[in-house]
Amino acid sequence: MNFNLARSIEILERTPVVLQTLLKDLHEDWTMNNEGPETFSPYDVIGHLIHGEKTDWRDRTMMILEHGVSKTFVPYDRFAQFEESQDKLLELLLKEFEELRKANLNWLRSLNLTETDFDKKGIHPSLGQVTLRQLLSTWVVHDLTHIAQVSRVMAKQYKQEMGPWVEYFRIMNF
Amino acid sequence: MNFNLARSIEILERTPVVLQTLLKDLHEDWTMNNEGPETFSPYDVIGHLIHGEKTDWRDRTMMILEHGVSKTFVPYDRFAQFEESQDKLLELLLKEFEELRKANLNWLRSLNLTETDFDKKGIHPSLGQVTLRQLLSTWVVHDLTHIAQVSRVMAKQYKQEMGPWVEYFRIMNF
Repeated sequence: MNFNLARSIEILERTPVVLQTLLKDLHEDWTMNNEGPETFSPYDVIGHLIHGEKTDWRDRTMMILEHGVSKTFVPYDRFAQFEESQDKLLELLLKEFEELRKANLNWLRSLNLTETDFDKKGIHPSLGQVTLRQLLSTWVVHDLTHIAQVSRVMAKQYKQEMGPWVEYFRIMNF
Repeated sequence: MNFNLARSIEILERTPVVLQTLLKDLHEDWTMNNEGPETFSPYDVIGHLIHGEKTDWRDRTMMILEHGVSKTFVPYDRFAQFEESQDKLLELLLKEFEELRKANLNWLRSLNLTETDFDKKGIHPSLGQVTLRQLLSTWVVHDLTHIAQVSRVMAKQYKQEMGPWVEYFRIMNF
């Protein structure tokens, strides 16, 4: 499948609602547990997505369009949410993510990007040269893989309770 | 996390809506592609979940409650949906899954299961003795891991478009 802005926005605009549907009103046993040390709970993932809306995708898109390869992206802090979301209710975080995403997609649409823009380049602090097409594709993949992660983390909370069935679920050892 | 019926139903009752929110009105590039030979597309997963509602979870629960270890479960056909869903629109499958699940959960609630029931045993054709607690936990895990799978399969459609970022996404090689 080739990159396509409209099809990317199809995913990006539904992610906040998907996560609300998946997590709203769930018991904390599902939302606050993780996969072990240094891993994210579903709650942590929402904070991480909020941080991405504030500091990553939009800023890097602007950086590519305005500065090209003459400036390097600011490194992304994958653990910022542990400070930023402190004590906020999951419901509030889900709402905050929805609002930030809506604003960012309105902004993205307003750019009226062309195929030439998608080929423009920027400099990632570790990966080197990347294109806007790659950045926007990664934004979509980042959403989908975090939805997958949230579902997997919740599934793992029942790993001990499944008995012998666990061997049929390769994903439980991921 | 210990098995708990109410917390299991929290997940089981939202799965159809989660999948509708994730898949409705998406372009077929997202919903009809898979991860390679002998793997499921998101479309295939919905057919598989429908088949489970019709032939697996409810039947095996009844088998445990009515026959215990004196009868063996009917083996589950993990590929039945390739025939059964043929040519049905994804929207219709999502609706069908929602209705079957609703009926099965009404039935499950009507059983008024107790802790003693959860310890009752049945015979799985390959795994041997299993308890009702393990069966019901596996039903929940099955839902969540298929939501994870659907999200991962969609993410993989952009694998080529992400450029060097793909190395940060371990899940893309699962």
